[in-house]
Amino acid sequence: MYFASDNAAGVAPAILDALQRANAGFALGYGQDEATKRLERRFSELFEREVAVFLVSTGTAANALALAHVSPPWGAVICHGEAHIAKDECGAPEFFGGGLKLVGLAGEGCKITASALAQTLERTAWGGPHHVTPAVLSLTQATEAGTVYQPNEIADLAALARSRGIAVHMDGARFANALVRLGLTAAEATWKAGVDVLSFGATKGGAMAAEAVVFFDSARAASMPERRKRGGHLISKHRFLAVQMEAFLTDGLWLTLARHANDMADRLAKRLSAIGLMPVWPVEANLVFSVISCEAHDRLQAAGAQYYAMQSNSLPESVKIASDSLLIRLVTSFSTTEADIDRFVVIAQG
Amino acid sequence: MYFASDNAAGVAPAILDALQRANAGFALGYGQDEATKRLERRFSELFEREVAVFLVSTGTAANALALAHVSPPWGAVICHGEAHIAKDECGAPEFFGGGLKLVGLAGEGCKITASALAQTLERTAWGGPHHVTPAVLSLTQATEAGTVYQPNEIADLAALARSRGIAVHMDGARFANALVRLGLTAAEATWKAGVDVLSFGATKGGAMAAEAVVFFDSARAASMPERRKRGGHLISKHRFLAVQMEAFLTDGLWLTLARHANDMADRLAKRLSAIGLMPVWPVEANLVFSVISCEAHDRLQAAGAQYYAMQSNSLPESVKIASDSLLIRLVTSFSTTEADIDRFVVIAQG
Amino acid sequence: MYFASDNAAGVAPAILDALQRANAGFALGYGQDEATKRLERRFSELFEREVAVFLVSTGTAANALALAHVSPPWGAVICHGEAHIAKDECGAPEFFGGGLKLVGLAGEGCKITASALAQTLERTAWGGPHHVTPAVLSLTQATEAGTVYQPNEIADLAALARSRGIAVHMDGARFANALVRLGLTAAEATWKAGVDVLSFGATKGGAMAAEAVVFFDSARAASMPERRKRGGHLISKHRFLAVQMEAFLTDGLWLTLARHANDMADRLAKRLSAIGLMPVWPVEANLVFSVISCEAHDRLQAAGAQYYAMQSNSLPESVKIASDSLLIRLVTSFSTTEADIDRFVVIAQG
Amino acid sequence: MYFASDNAAGVAPAILDALQRANAGFALGYGQDEATKRLERRFSELFEREVAVFLVSTGTAANALALAHVSPPWGAVICHGEAHIAKDECGAPEFFGGGLKLVGLAGEGCKITASALAQTLERTAWGGPHHVTPAVLSLTQATEAGTVYQPNEIADLAALARSRGIAVHMDGARFANALVRLGLTAAEATWKAGVDVLSFGATKGGAMAAEAVVFFDSARAASMPERRKRGGHLISKHRFLAVQMEAFLTDGLWLTLARHANDMADRLAKRLSAIGLMPVWPVEANLVFSVISCEAHDRLQAAGAQYYAMQSNSLPESVKIASDSLLIRLVTSFSTTEADIDRFVVIAQG
Repeated sequence: MYFASDNAAGVAPAILDALQRANAGFALGYGQDEATKRLERRFSELFEREVAVFLVSTGTAANALALAHVSPPWGAVICHGEAHIAKDECGAPEFFGGGLKLVGLAGEGCKITASALAQTLERTAWGGPHHVTPAVLSLTQATEAGTVYQPNEIADLAALARSRGIAVHMDGARFANALVRLGLTAAEATWKAGVDVLSFGATKGGAMAAEAVVFFDSARAASMPERRKRGGHLISKHRFLAVQMEAFLTDGLWLTLARHANDMADRLAKRLSAIGLMPVWPVEANLVFSVISCEAHDRLQAAGAQYYAMQSNSLPESVKIASDSLLIRLVTSFSTTEADIDRFVVIAQG
Repeated sequence: MYFASDNAAGVAPAILDALQRANAGFALGYGQDEATKRLERRFSELFEREVAVFLVSTGTAANALALAHVSPPWGAVICHGEAHIAKDECGAPEFFGGGLKLVGLAGEGCKITASALAQTLERTAWGGPHHVTPAVLSLTQATEAGTVYQPNEIADLAALARSRGIAVHMDGARFANALVRLGLTAAEATWKAGVDVLSFGATKGGAMAAEAVVFFDSARAASMPERRKRGGHLISKHRFLAVQMEAFLTDGLWLTLARHANDMADRLAKRLSAIGLMPVWPVEANLVFSVISCEAHDRLQAAGAQYYAMQSNSLPESVKIASDSLLIRLVTSFSTTEADIDRFVVIAQG
Repeated sequence: MYFASDNAAGVAPAILDALQRANAGFALGYGQDEATKRLERRFSELFEREVAVFLVSTGTAANALALAHVSPPWGAVICHGEAHIAKDECGAPEFFGGGLKLVGLAGEGCKITASALAQTLERTAWGGPHHVTPAVLSLTQATEAGTVYQPNEIADLAALARSRGIAVHMDGARFANALVRLGLTAAEATWKAGVDVLSFGATKGGAMAAEAVVFFDSARAASMPERRKRGGHLISKHRFLAVQMEAFLTDGLWLTLARHANDMADRLAKRLSAIGLMPVWPVEANLVFSVISCEAHDRLQAAGAQYYAMQSNSLPESVKIASDSLLIRLVTSFSTTEADIDRFVVIAQG
Repeated sequence: MYFASDNAAGVAPAILDALQRANAGFALGYGQDEATKRLERRFSELFEREVAVFLVSTGTAANALALAHVSPPWGAVICHGEAHIAKDECGAPEFFGGGLKLVGLAGEGCKITASALAQTLERTAWGGPHHVTPAVLSLTQATEAGTVYQPNEIADLAALARSRGIAVHMDGARFANALVRLGLTAAEATWKAGVDVLSFGATKGGAMAAEAVVFFDSARAASMPERRKRGGHLISKHRFLAVQMEAFLTDGLWLTLARHANDMADRLAKRLSAIGLMPVWPVEANLVFSVISCEAHDRLQAAGAQYYAMQSNSLPESVKIASDSLLIRLVTSFSTTEADIDRFVVIAQG
């Protein structure tokens, strides 16, 4: 019963096979190999335009490098207050960004609303030179609460940002999960809605360690090779990074894997609801949040269930957590089984 | 005929097998898994003392994180002027180190001598507060010239450094190659000779992407987890990093692979010498440097040989490079074949 | 009618005189002069213990250098969300601190309460290594709202901080104004209440450009000379910085000047109250905040009054700002006159 | 006998007078005052074109802010190996520049030659992304050896730089001394010769603490206000900075003061030559370097003479420093007296 994180899953077999196949013979390092070049073309096809792609090994690296590249050190990155970049990266964006500042907004379900963004932009003293300048809007898709921005929501937020010269970044560690739910093309969900730079995640989805920073305007990527290198994020045997991503994209594997994870989350939410444990937020990706009794928690822990209890300021007003209850996060993945879910629910029910 | 770099080789089969085996089931991420814990113990055994180990994906990350951790931002890292950290990492040590300064010394064969170090320490204005303070001595073992520091050389340099409170870092991207040549234990070649922190390389030796920062005094590693995380260098599916390193160390694989690479370099040097192309520096690891005619270079290029021409300020006085000649670097690896070497030499001979 | 800022005032005559006197003859630069040495002793007397003092030219420099010196790059500086360091220094603490993170708390009158601090410390995920580590509590005394922390409030906050190894910084740009109001000694208001490092302001109080970072445990100041130098904040003709501060402290000038500024604020508040414009927050230093009608604002502007309209999230619940009103900030200084105040109030009344 | 540094002198009386006069009344802070606006116009007149000017309190701040503004973090600043920015600023350029790299060239008399620059540009591996990219050429005028670049030398160096997209920075801490010697206009000595950004020094020349960063293409100065602010280098009572610089420039005071300092250096060199102590480098500004016997040194020290002994790698080949001799640096200033010089020489002669 592994619901601690989608990175507790292993690697999708097709990706391991790709690593094996890539091991034949020699290849120039640092991205000068054929697999990397193929992959770069593949990304441009996927997004239906010329893009600039930079592979790295972690999502934190992808986010921090992307943000540092589109914000000056005196820039503000506006994000949700519970965004991964704000809470779970130990200050990586600030470090890579030369001391830039994250400005965290409130918003139910870890989503920023256009009105919250507008209010922040209007009511805050910016620039001049005493204050930082709003430089980036960072949206997580799917969010840390397992919710998903609708394309019109992204478009509204992006329009607001762009009207003030603010770049739009999307943290897509679970981009595939969102895409599958939305039924959109990758292009529709990103640059067509106003996204400038995307952290495209594959690790949580089934790769071993592969993420991509995608610039939709490749001019914006100038000097990114140097930034990545001096961040220690240019992998030397780069073909093994490229083929992970290539296998992830081949024959829609990434969407198949994400669909399974989402389906498992749906099943989990449905079963939990059936025993009175309604999901705290809409289940739109592969995360289910629920408030359980400490008693149920003890039973689950005793049975070896893996998941995290947590706190959030983004709860709906209707959700109250009593002193003998806990908010828990359950994450499904491409390898979650129905059996594990059903067993979890049985134990939760007591 | 792939002599461009040891990272043009693939992955040793035993390491790929380990990745495959590690894929069974779930495991907590971020180094909380069993494989990582096993590996940490393995490193302490290898070095015959309690050590603190941090795995990362690139040698640049290992070096930059290690140096930043033992130098304040106003520190000087004293190294050879042609060290990898000084020339080939696009300023990663300066970036991670908050603007620290590399001070490059001259020295034949990319080696620092104790007298050069002593002279620099004595003749330079340090600290006070107008000047940076010498904080780290960084030695590359084996060096960028394919030479190796003898244990007494390291001990002399380290004693000098330590007498002034300077930490000793070893860039061991090719540590195995040096160790095999020296016939020492890992402990003898490092902390017993005065090394405080080691970048232990596996990638060039046969791993996919695995390097370790090893602190011999684990107290010195305090907060290194945070530094690594905010550098984006904490791999989420960490077991796959750990098992690469574990397989590398199992049954002496790392030394077997290094021995092959060194043997191939010896063979290459011997064959080239036989046709009058003496190695520029002693061949003590898996690199051979030679001065060839432009004519020979053209022939080799036409035949598809892969290697780099380069320039160096560390040549022995006796070596002159005529205007119709080139200094070339030939790197062997665990997968270099005798056939490739022999073919290369035949073509070089013309 | 200059109420825009206390830095719109000039220099107290005694301080200008000191500059004139200091101009006789030669003196070694960079703080090696006699005036600096005298001043260092003077500070130790003032604070009744051996302290380490570093003079700089701006309050932003004092704050940013102090915070960077007591927080690692992965540290969190907990402060009020409307603190000067958070809002008005364009990210200087983040820059000097290598990308540290400011965590802004809410609190009426720009004051942090012990319960708000306790809740933040308990409810936030810290360290581990995904999250930043609470490293510094920064209190502004007097606050940006012109309120003052009572010694027991500081002691409670500091005790909480220290129990978790968190250093306590005080931004004392208006320290003299607070001290005069509290009727405490400098020692009582700082280290005796638990403060570890103080930004001691003189510029707003009457100096030309002189601020001091004061470490109450001088061991904590190790390497601060280097940090200041590489920040470009070591003034070469340092005697002219030292004598400003010396004159400021001589014969209680600093307290006399602050008392005048506070008295003027009290008068302003009293007169405004008399016409129905109650101060928004208690007037405890040299700042008065009031809500005025747009009509009054227009009259005052037309008459040449200098002040800023602003917004705040720290208002008492009872204060509402109607759409035809403005929150304004009025700052008095050592050179504010009763005549200006009285004229301001007459015009405000209409 | 104060020859330790030109910053051991006090402040020119006219500049102190200006501070006194500027103290009348209130003025908006942070450069919004009239004096600052006047000064900005004055600089544009001086340089015969629209320039962007930023005042700061130290030369280190001016240099570090200027370099950081025209170099990316992965840039190389090419300078003389003994330049102030490389040796005497404790890594300020690296800190402000986000970890940029200084590349120090050799050259007699602390001057870079066009051929040395050309060779470095050609023979070094740059960019790509493993190496830093040459971004700035920094020339010190007058140099740390008291020598001066001729306009054609600057033009040649600048042409070489510009042909590769490299910006040209001039560290003009002693710009006035050079200008007086060269007999050029400020425009001829800077942008007309190819300089892009100038650190214009006034402190060593007679101000209290006033330096300016001057961008000759004001577009290049975009966001410099934010960079200065977050460096803690925006002085609040800014008028007092502006009037120092204004008085320095008024009626050619700066040139008069520099001429005196240069004349004193000439006199000192001439007198020393007469007793057999030839200057080591041509005396072209206000610095004289000489090799004296330890015996003479002891006599001078006993008599209270203030100066520094030093070491240099930029000596002419003909100059050898015997083991019983010392290289000493003697700096004259606007307040150096003939009497002090004559006394110094008498004692040196013994």
